[in-house]
Amino acid sequence: MKLATLRLEGAATTAVRIDGDAAIEISGYADLGALLAVEGWRDIAAVADGTSHVLSEIAPQSWAPVVPKPGKIICVGQNYETHIKEMGRELPQYPTLFAKFPEALVGAFDEIEMPAVSSQVDWEAELAVVIGAPARRVSESDAKNYIAGYAVINDVSMRDYQYRTLQWLQGKTFENTAPFGPYLVTADEWDLGPIMKCVVDGETVQETTTAELVFTPAKLVSYISDIITLNAGDVIATGTTGGVGHARTPARYLSDGSLLETSIEGLGAQRNIAKVV
Amino acid sequence: MKLATLRLEGAATTAVRIDGDAAIEISGYADLGALLAVEGWRDIAAVADGTSHVLSEIAPQSWAPVVPKPGKIICVGQNYETHIKEMGRELPQYPTLFAKFPEALVGAFDEIEMPAVSSQVDWEAELAVVIGAPARRVSESDAKNYIAGYAVINDVSMRDYQYRTLQWLQGKTFENTAPFGPYLVTADEWDLGPIMKCVVDGETVQETTTAELVFTPAKLVSYISDIITLNAGDVIATGTTGGVGHARTPARYLSDGSLLETSIEGLGAQRNIAKVV
Repeated sequence: MKLATLRLEGAATTAVRIDGDAAIEISGYADLGALLAVEGWRDIAAVADGTSHVLSEIAPQSWAPVVPKPGKIICVGQNYETHIKEMGRELPQYPTLFAKFPEALVGAFDEIEMPAVSSQVDWEAELAVVIGAPARRVSESDAKNYIAGYAVINDVSMRDYQYRTLQWLQGKTFENTAPFGPYLVTADEWDLGPIMKCVVDGETVQETTTAELVFTPAKLVSYISDIITLNAGDVIATGTTGGVGHARTPARYLSDGSLLETSIEGLGAQRNIAKVV
Repeated sequence: MKLATLRLEGAATTAVRIDGDAAIEISGYADLGALLAVEGWRDIAAVADGTSHVLSEIAPQSWAPVVPKPGKIICVGQNYETHIKEMGRELPQYPTLFAKFPEALVGAFDEIEMPAVSSQVDWEAELAVVIGAPARRVSESDAKNYIAGYAVINDVSMRDYQYRTLQWLQGKTFENTAPFGPYLVTADEWDLGPIMKCVVDGETVQETTTAELVFTPAKLVSYISDIITLNAGDVIATGTTGGVGHARTPARYLSDGSLLETSIEGLGAQRNIAKVV
């Protein structure tokens, strides 16, 4: 099942199920976060028969972040072998975790806000895991039952702010910078393996199989659930791979008008223009 | 004005105004976060005349975290000169920012959950700033207009998890560990200067004047608002001072049954028992 959040007239949004070339409203649920918070969300989504929208007629800016306001967004650093090596580090024993706040999210086709205060805006294509039920102290083998599904996210990072201090948060949570979507594919229909790709102005800058993750979604859910309850709608951004702009020689960053395209096979493709604000 | 969130019967809570020896319900607002989200919250709080509770008859466990579910909790590291020196560091040019998630909060008299997986649970008495209106790109001189008020928070930290990787988040956000309250004092009635104190099992382990902050609340609001919108109810934990257990020789941590008392003159006192769960 493919699920998403669509923007309607005004400030309204709705959860939708995508069937072939149509998006069908799941009436009564303003976004996918509200839907996932209900225990029987799979059945509700499967039988929903609200207003139908032809996919090709949906404006790009109508695609909201898959879950617009997750309770928590937990990001993982250094989780692909090639990226760890590119950064000059050893394979880790524990996942590196940091946060992003919901205000950082944009839709899959929205503009990325380039803040005037940063001159090092970089890309990080990532697989996002969306939680489907409250998970507390769950084992790795049980963890899959708590995953609603998967989506594309780009953990766009302001490297100058990220490295101003030892803690990365301030470079990872600039407002309206991280495209999330266009849709979620439920966990029964997608698994690690497909290719993830990031393309900047037509040039492929990152490309990896998602099978290369050091800490898998199940491992991450289990590990984090020892620390804190993962609630429905929470998001884990599982980390990026080699090829970020900051690690290049010379370093390369997004600039006003850059086109960022991020995709994972089976999970769809994002297309975002960077825009100085 | 003193404001707080009280737990009522069942799962219900209410925002209250504290007048002398009474807590008066601000009807229609389930917690202080819901109240602060309304533009005219100061006037609404000032004239509220709901059910009155005699302070001395309120059970300790009725005090919820001041704002139970902030949209964002942004913590500041290394913000007191003595603590920076104790950690062997230079005075910083930029504030070190990291996150805590709302599930980490407990009330001012609740038990602190000591997780079986950590053996290094440490204290960090801190001044919390609570936001009272959306702040985006505000100057330091304007920042005060966006601060609702101040409260006590203890940024209880699992040092083993904090230092497992370069990013501190996982040691800073264990469930039900960070006492927040008992109440908020509005910004017109409190300012930097009063003494902050942390006492463990009767021994004073931290004591400082809050005037010693390197980055003041106004500086922090201004700085963070360049990155992201600070919304009403959001919390900035402004950092701790010297005297944490991890920096002692030998190191000292909380254990099952430890009594943690955290206070700031004018902002009240917390009293929490650490309890292995």
